[in-house]
Amino acid sequence: MSVDGRLTYRDAGVDLEAAAQVKEEIRALVESTRTETVRAGFGSFGGRFDAGADTQLVASADGVGTKLKVAFLAGRHDTVGQDLVNHCVNDILTEGAEPLVFMDYFACGRLDRGVTLDVVRGVALACRENGCALLGGETAEMPDFYSEGEYDLAGFVVGRLEWPEVAGRDVRAGDALIGLASSGLHTNGYSFVRKLVFDRLGLDVEDELPGTDATVGDVLLRPHRSYVNVLRGPCHEGRVRALAHVTGGGIPGNVDRVLPPDLDAVVDLATWTPPPEFRFLQEQSGATKSEMYRTFNMGIGMVAVVRPEDEESTLSGLREHGCAAWRCGRLESGSGVVRLLGVGDEG
Amino acid sequence: MSVDGRLTYRDAGVDLEAAAQVKEEIRALVESTRTETVRAGFGSFGGRFDAGADTQLVASADGVGTKLKVAFLAGRHDTVGQDLVNHCVNDILTEGAEPLVFMDYFACGRLDRGVTLDVVRGVALACRENGCALLGGETAEMPDFYSEGEYDLAGFVVGRLEWPEVAGRDVRAGDALIGLASSGLHTNGYSFVRKLVFDRLGLDVEDELPGTDATVGDVLLRPHRSYVNVLRGPCHEGRVRALAHVTGGGIPGNVDRVLPPDLDAVVDLATWTPPPEFRFLQEQSGATKSEMYRTFNMGIGMVAVVRPEDEESTLSGLREHGCAAWRCGRLESGSGVVRLLGVGDEG
Repeated sequence: MSVDGRLTYRDAGVDLEAAAQVKEEIRALVESTRTETVRAGFGSFGGRFDAGADTQLVASADGVGTKLKVAFLAGRHDTVGQDLVNHCVNDILTEGAEPLVFMDYFACGRLDRGVTLDVVRGVALACRENGCALLGGETAEMPDFYSEGEYDLAGFVVGRLEWPEVAGRDVRAGDALIGLASSGLHTNGYSFVRKLVFDRLGLDVEDELPGTDATVGDVLLRPHRSYVNVLRGPCHEGRVRALAHVTGGGIPGNVDRVLPPDLDAVVDLATWTPPPEFRFLQEQSGATKSEMYRTFNMGIGMVAVVRPEDEESTLSGLREHGCAAWRCGRLESGSGVVRLLGVGDEG
Repeated sequence: MSVDGRLTYRDAGVDLEAAAQVKEEIRALVESTRTETVRAGFGSFGGRFDAGADTQLVASADGVGTKLKVAFLAGRHDTVGQDLVNHCVNDILTEGAEPLVFMDYFACGRLDRGVTLDVVRGVALACRENGCALLGGETAEMPDFYSEGEYDLAGFVVGRLEWPEVAGRDVRAGDALIGLASSGLHTNGYSFVRKLVFDRLGLDVEDELPGTDATVGDVLLRPHRSYVNVLRGPCHEGRVRALAHVTGGGIPGNVDRVLPPDLDAVVDLATWTPPPEFRFLQEQSGATKSEMYRTFNMGIGMVAVVRPEDEESTLSGLREHGCAAWRCGRLESGSGVVRLLGVGDEG
């Protein structure tokens, strides 16, 4: 806890600045391995490479993170596989790729048949939903490594570059930012959430999460949503100029990844109301609005950049596919940063 | 420990039969996700898929397993990344693929700059040695998940199918089995080893491993060797009919994966002497020869199947590249099993 009792992400044990520093050193190591097959990699949502004549692929690796701990508490293991796959396919979607194959890494202390199959069932379900084949994976039994009943889960996706203009990120001042609704917390901010909800507030997974009609477990385990099926249409029609997957770092820490150095993304927080779980987390933690928007997706899981003239048709297409979406901002001349209108300075 | 004091793999906390059962159930889930892009997958060393016109790729996921615990004990983190990469590239080599790109997943409780960079340095070194680009990866800080100073590491490789005849496995009675020397334990059997060496015998990583001139830490952390560079020549020349990467399950549990139902692999244990670390483990554990050969590679990390007339040229080519290799057996009419000549029935 910080001195005034507010909970920050660093209090929860995660030091994002130290992580950013190590990332820069890793970048040099990655560069040392570069071959002519690599097209784009480090710092992107996914790495792009040549697989043969006229075939560019995009790959990405990810984990579920400490959301897994909530699954352990709830004894519910069929959703985290969906988190894993959907997170990965969203990442390569932002690089203009449709998923082809997925592989998982599941490591546990002692193999529990039911738990393992529930996890893989979730992976397989999400693979089918995304039209992506589960090609294989590794199931590792590592005694004395993971606590009883615990496991870790990582995933790797490979997709084919289908929409180079999405990867190309030809964005301009005046372009509209379209926010696509998240399904909940997705897979970020869980160290913060667990510390607050379980340690500080003493809630149980079976308790109702105040302000919602659902239990803590249901809200916190709601699967990370995939945007592949809802964005395929707008991507095929050439209307999507860039995509930012809102993960760790929130909107400011991800939308900046698609900005050229001379444009700012201005996001107007008045254009939507964060779902009740985010409001609950902010009220109970005392975190500033700025901290909240840097830790959580706050209701937007993906941001699409489109030309102003494509805004209406893109929005109606997304809504027809059942995805709530709205214009949440625009690009302006600037210096490559994300500005949140309405974040205030109350923190 | 079993009743008579001998140490078996199951005593060490790993139940291979239960794992095999779960694997069959996972197979059905994997099949449910199959798309037309998939060429071969489950049960292979790597999954094969179409990436575009005339481009077939092979992917594989793996971890380092509990060998990591030895790295933690020794405080030495620059070798496990090599284990990870080399294990993965060997797997896809058996499917006829040259590695293109690699991604890693590194998860820890608290990010330690030095440890993380040492791990990634090992990954990058092995990527360079294998001519494979480190495309990116995921570094996850998961508080309360991993013990202080511990981490898990998984990897994912994608390669291009270069030698379809290796993947095709057109093997015949009379073909020679060539054993390629391992560099040590590689990455298998470590639950067994740790229980024996540290728990039962009370050795420290700094102690000399009896029968060797090296410390326990040096012997147990020797990196898993890659066979890509030594086998590229014989593969290019079309002399390699099949390859089996000797990992968990040892020679009998991996060479059987390249056998048709009407051939046996007859491996003559008199053709080589297992390196001293394996002899030490057998003597001290009291494990039977059969158990040893099912748990460890016993000195052979890869088995190549070649026609009898290609045996000599393949052997001399391998030796010129600095890889000890010898004829360790042959294929005979049979029923798809591996028979170890000289295993005895002393257990």
